[in-house]
Amino acid sequence: MSYLRLGLAQINPVMGDFRVNREKISTKLREAAGAGAGLVVFPELAVCGYPPEDLLLKTGFVNACQQTIRDLGPATKDLVAVVGFAHREQGRVHNSAAVLARGRLAGVYHKRELPNYGVFDEKRYFTPGHLPLLLDGRGLRAAVTICEDIWVEGGEAERFIRQQGVDLIINCSASPFYAGKFAKRRRLLTGLARRTKAAVAYVNMVGGQDELVFDGGSLVIDAQGKVLASAPHFEESLHLLDLPLPTGKRRKSGGSSRALRVAWPGQEKPGSFPNTRVPAPGRLEEIYAALVTGTRDYVRKNGFQKVVLGLSGGIDSSLTAAVAIDALGPGNVVGVTMPSEFTSTATLSDAGRLAGNLGIRLLTIPITPIFQAYKDSLAETFSEGRPGIENENIQARVRGNLLMALSNRLGWLVLTTGNKSETAVGYCTLYGDMAGGFAVIKDVPKTLVFELSGLVNRTHGKDVIPASVIERPPSAELRPDQKDEDSLPPYPVLDKVLQAYVEEDRDLEAIVRQGHARNLVQEVIRLVDQNEYKRRQAPPGVKITPKAFGRDRRLPLTNRFRPGRLPSR
Amino acid sequence: MSYLRLGLAQINPVMGDFRVNREKISTKLREAAGAGAGLVVFPELAVCGYPPEDLLLKTGFVNACQQTIRDLGPATKDLVAVVGFAHREQGRVHNSAAVLARGRLAGVYHKRELPNYGVFDEKRYFTPGHLPLLLDGRGLRAAVTICEDIWVEGGEAERFIRQQGVDLIINCSASPFYAGKFAKRRRLLTGLARRTKAAVAYVNMVGGQDELVFDGGSLVIDAQGKVLASAPHFEESLHLLDLPLPTGKRRKSGGSSRALRVAWPGQEKPGSFPNTRVPAPGRLEEIYAALVTGTRDYVRKNGFQKVVLGLSGGIDSSLTAAVAIDALGPGNVVGVTMPSEFTSTATLSDAGRLAGNLGIRLLTIPITPIFQAYKDSLAETFSEGRPGIENENIQARVRGNLLMALSNRLGWLVLTTGNKSETAVGYCTLYGDMAGGFAVIKDVPKTLVFELSGLVNRTHGKDVIPASVIERPPSAELRPDQKDEDSLPPYPVLDKVLQAYVEEDRDLEAIVRQGHARNLVQEVIRLVDQNEYKRRQAPPGVKITPKAFGRDRRLPLTNRFRPGRLPSR
Repeated sequence: MSYLRLGLAQINPVMGDFRVNREKISTKLREAAGAGAGLVVFPELAVCGYPPEDLLLKTGFVNACQQTIRDLGPATKDLVAVVGFAHREQGRVHNSAAVLARGRLAGVYHKRELPNYGVFDEKRYFTPGHLPLLLDGRGLRAAVTICEDIWVEGGEAERFIRQQGVDLIINCSASPFYAGKFAKRRRLLTGLARRTKAAVAYVNMVGGQDELVFDGGSLVIDAQGKVLASAPHFEESLHLLDLPLPTGKRRKSGGSSRALRVAWPGQEKPGSFPNTRVPAPGRLEEIYAALVTGTRDYVRKNGFQKVVLGLSGGIDSSLTAAVAIDALGPGNVVGVTMPSEFTSTATLSDAGRLAGNLGIRLLTIPITPIFQAYKDSLAETFSEGRPGIENENIQARVRGNLLMALSNRLGWLVLTTGNKSETAVGYCTLYGDMAGGFAVIKDVPKTLVFELSGLVNRTHGKDVIPASVIERPPSAELRPDQKDEDSLPPYPVLDKVLQAYVEEDRDLEAIVRQGHARNLVQEVIRLVDQNEYKRRQAPPGVKITPKAFGRDRRLPLTNRFRPGRLPSR
Repeated sequence: MSYLRLGLAQINPVMGDFRVNREKISTKLREAAGAGAGLVVFPELAVCGYPPEDLLLKTGFVNACQQTIRDLGPATKDLVAVVGFAHREQGRVHNSAAVLARGRLAGVYHKRELPNYGVFDEKRYFTPGHLPLLLDGRGLRAAVTICEDIWVEGGEAERFIRQQGVDLIINCSASPFYAGKFAKRRRLLTGLARRTKAAVAYVNMVGGQDELVFDGGSLVIDAQGKVLASAPHFEESLHLLDLPLPTGKRRKSGGSSRALRVAWPGQEKPGSFPNTRVPAPGRLEEIYAALVTGTRDYVRKNGFQKVVLGLSGGIDSSLTAAVAIDALGPGNVVGVTMPSEFTSTATLSDAGRLAGNLGIRLLTIPITPIFQAYKDSLAETFSEGRPGIENENIQARVRGNLLMALSNRLGWLVLTTGNKSETAVGYCTLYGDMAGGFAVIKDVPKTLVFELSGLVNRTHGKDVIPASVIERPPSAELRPDQKDEDSLPPYPVLDKVLQAYVEEDRDLEAIVRQGHARNLVQEVIRLVDQNEYKRRQAPPGVKITPKAFGRDRRLPLTNRFRPGRLPSR
C-alpha cells in the first residue's frame, strides 16, 4: 500500500496584490515539498483574490494572473499543484485552475458552472469551459473542478466524473461564509462522494474581502462519505493527510477520456499528522470569528493601523468594540464617548467601564455646544415647518462629523456600530451613526447582537460588556426618555419578520400566515422598502446571513411596488 | 395599396406601480384605436419599468406583471398591441413581449439575448427564450424581438428573420441613454434593415429610473434603411405612421415557421401625420435633456415636491440649479448659501445673482459659528497629530448637515452638486458636499460642465449663470486662496486622462502613449483607485457617459492592483 500525500493550502490572498499572493503560494509549496506532499490544492482565483469584479475587465489584471502562474512553475519541481487563476484564451476570460507539475504549467481547467445569483456575478466576466481535466498518476485518477461545478447536482461535472471512474475530485473554492454554510457544504460534499464513489479534496479560501468572509474549513471526504480531514476555520493553513493510492488492478471502470499523466511522488508509509480533523466551531463562535476576520482584513488590507468608534454605552457599540479588539488588539482601538443633554449617567459610565474592561483608550467630546450652534444657526429658517426628527439627526451627524474629523486628522478608520435590524427599517441616521468606513455588525440582527454579547462575556470569563448594558432597554438617546420600542416592534418580533421578508423574500401574506399581525408586517415592509436609499449610502460590513444588504439584494431606489397589493381590476 | 397604421407608444413607466403603468398603456391604446391604428408597440418591460433588479425575485412582482397584461386585454379589441412584461413559466422567469389581439393574450415571445455587461444584469433574473414569434396579417409578416435580440449582429434572432422572409421587425426596447447613443442606435437599425431587407419598428422607453435615463427617440426604418418616422426624445408620445402592406403575391420567400394570424385593421388611404420625423437634439442639448429628465423623474417618482441645494457661487452648483429649475420649476427649488471666513465676496454675490436670475428662493446660513464650535470641541484632542484636511472637511460637513436638517424639517430632497472629475479623483468630502439624495451632475466631467453652462445661457438668451462664475478659476474655498489647480491637473488634461482610464479602461502605458506625462497619469490612476470607497457611499445621479460610476463600473474597495505594475520576477 502506498499513499499520496495531499496538502490543502487554504490561503488568504490580498485582492490584486500579485506579489503578496505569489509569496503566500510559493511559501506553502515549499512547506508542502518539505513535508513530502505529492499534490497541493489552492483555492479558486488564489493568485488574485475573490471576487475581483471589474478588475477582470482590465487586460493587465488577467495578464498578471497568468504571469503569476508562470512565475510559480519552478516551485513545483517535486510535486503537483492545482492553483486557481483567471486565464485569457482567444479573447475570452475563464475562471481557471492551473495544474503545475515538473516545474511548469502542465494543464489548465476552465470552470463550467458560473454562479450568477446572490453575491455572484460570474457570467459578467467569464466564459464557461466545456472540457474536463483528468490527472492520472500512480494509478489514481483525479478530476479537477472549481467551486460551483460540484454544487450542481447531476450537472456536467458530476456526470463526467461518474462516467470516467474518477478516484478523487479536486475542488478549488472561494465559498463565502454565512452562518450554517459549513454544515451545508459538508452535506453537499458527502452526498457528492457517495453518488460518485470518489473521494473529494475541497479547498476553500480564507479571509475577508470587502463584505465577504471566506471561512476555510477545507475538507477531504472519502468515497464512502466519511470526513478524513478537516482544516481549521478562518485561519490560513497547509493541512496534510495521506490518501491511499489504488492498489493492483483499477477498482473502477476507467473512462475513455484522455488524462494528463502526472508524476506525484508517493509515500510508502502513512505519516502522522496531529489534529487532522479540526472540530467545527459552534454557531455563535463561527459568526463571531467571521466578524473578527472580516473586520481585521478590511482594516489591514486597506492599510489602516487603528480604528475609532463611538461608544454610546449601548450594546451595539459594545459588541463592535469587542470585535475590534479581537481583530486588531486593544492598542489599535479608540473609543469616543460624545454625551449630549439626553445621555444618561448610566450609559455614560457604562461606556467608561466597557473601555476599561477592553483596555482601550477612551476620548470624551461633549456635543452640546456644537448642537447648540446648529440650533442657533437654523432658528430663523426653522420658524417654518413643524418640528420633526431634524434635531435627533443633527445630534447623530455631529457625532459622525467628530469621528470623521478624528479619522481625517489621525488616520484612524471609523467603525460604525449599526445592526441589521435598524439598518433594515432605517432606524439610523445617514451621515450620522451611519458615517464611517466599515460597518462591523450591519448584517447582525439585534437579537443576535444580544447572543453574541453573551458569548463575548463567556469567552472572557467575566462581564467585559457590563450586565447593565445588556439589560437596559435599547435607546438612541436622542430625545428625553426615548426607547427603541416606542418606534419599533419588540426586537424578537421585528427580527422574525425581517428574516422572512429580507432573507427569505416572503411576501406579506406568507409572513402573516407565520402568525404576525398584518398591520405590523405591512409597516415593517414599508419601512424596509422606504429606506433602501439609506442603505445604498452605507459603508460595507461583514455578511453573516444568507442574504445581507448589499450585493446580495439589489433593489431599485425608485420603487413603488408594495407586495401584497395586486393591482385591482 | 393599403396600409397598416403603426403606433410607437413610448411611455415613461413608474417602477413597480402597476396601476399607473396600466393606465398609461390603456390610455395610449384608446388613443391609438381612436386614430385607427392597427398595431401599437410598447417598450420592453413596459408594465413594470426597467430595470426591476431583485424585484424580479419576488413572486408577487412577476404575478402583478402577468395580471396587468391580462387586465389590458379588453383594450385591444380593435387592434394588436405588443407590450413588454415579465412572465413566469414552469418556474422560470422570462423577459417577454405579450401580443394582445381581439381583446385577449394571443401570444408571448421570450427575449433570446440577455445582456449581462455594463449596467445590465439580465442573466441574474431571466431564462433566455429559444422560440421566434411571427405575426401574420393582411400579407405582412412581422417578427417580435426585444432590445438586445437585434444588437447581436448575425445572432439567433437575425438569422431567423433572414430565413423566414420577414417584412417587419418589431423591437420593444429599454435602451439607456448616454451621449451619442441615439446615433449609434440609428446606425444599428439601419444596418439591420438593410441586411435583413425588413422594415424595423423600434420603440424605446422614456424617463428616468435611478441612475438611468431612457431617451425615447423611437424609430421606424424601411427595408432600404431609410428613416420613415422618428419620435420625440425624452417625451412620452404615441407616434403614428402608415406602413404600406405588401400587395399581390408575397415579395419574399416566406419561411416555414408557423405564424400567429392576426387581424390588424388596414387603412385604404395613408393618413397625414404632422411632424413624423422629429429631429434629434444636438450633443449638448441631449445631455442637458437627460439631466433634466433624470432629475425630474427621481424627485417626482420618489414623491418629493421640492429640492434644496447649496449655492457656492461656483459653476457646478450653478449648473445643477439650472437643471433643477428646468426639471421642477423655480418655485420648487431652494438655494442655500453657507458662507465661511474663506468665502469671497465675489462668489457670495454671484450666488445671489444666480438665484435672482433663476427666480429661486435663497437662504443664507453662515457656518462660522458652528465651525468654531467644532474647533473648540476638538482642540484638546487635536493637540495630537498634524493638521491635515480635517478643517476643510469639517466645513463641508457642516454644510451637508445644514442641508440635511432643512431636508428633515421641510421635506425637501437635497441635490448634490459634484461633477464627475472631482468624484473620480476624490476631490470632494464624504458626508459633506457628497451628502444628499440625488447627484445631478455626478457623471458630467468638469469640461462638459463649462460647455453645458454655456448652453444654459444661450438657451435663456442671457447670462443666467453669471459670466464671472464661468470665468473664475474653480475653487473649493475651504482655505485661503485655494484653487482646484493647486491640487489637480488642469481640467482639460484631467478629463482626457479620466476618459481613457475610467470610461475606456485603458492602462497606464496606453494612456501615456496618448501623450500624457507618466507621473501625472500614475497620480490620477492612484487617486481614482484610492477613492472607490467615497464613491461607494455617494448618492445616485444621471448616467450620461458610456461608463458612469455606479452599476456600470464595479470595483472592489479592497484592491491593491496597480495597473502598469506587473509583478516582478
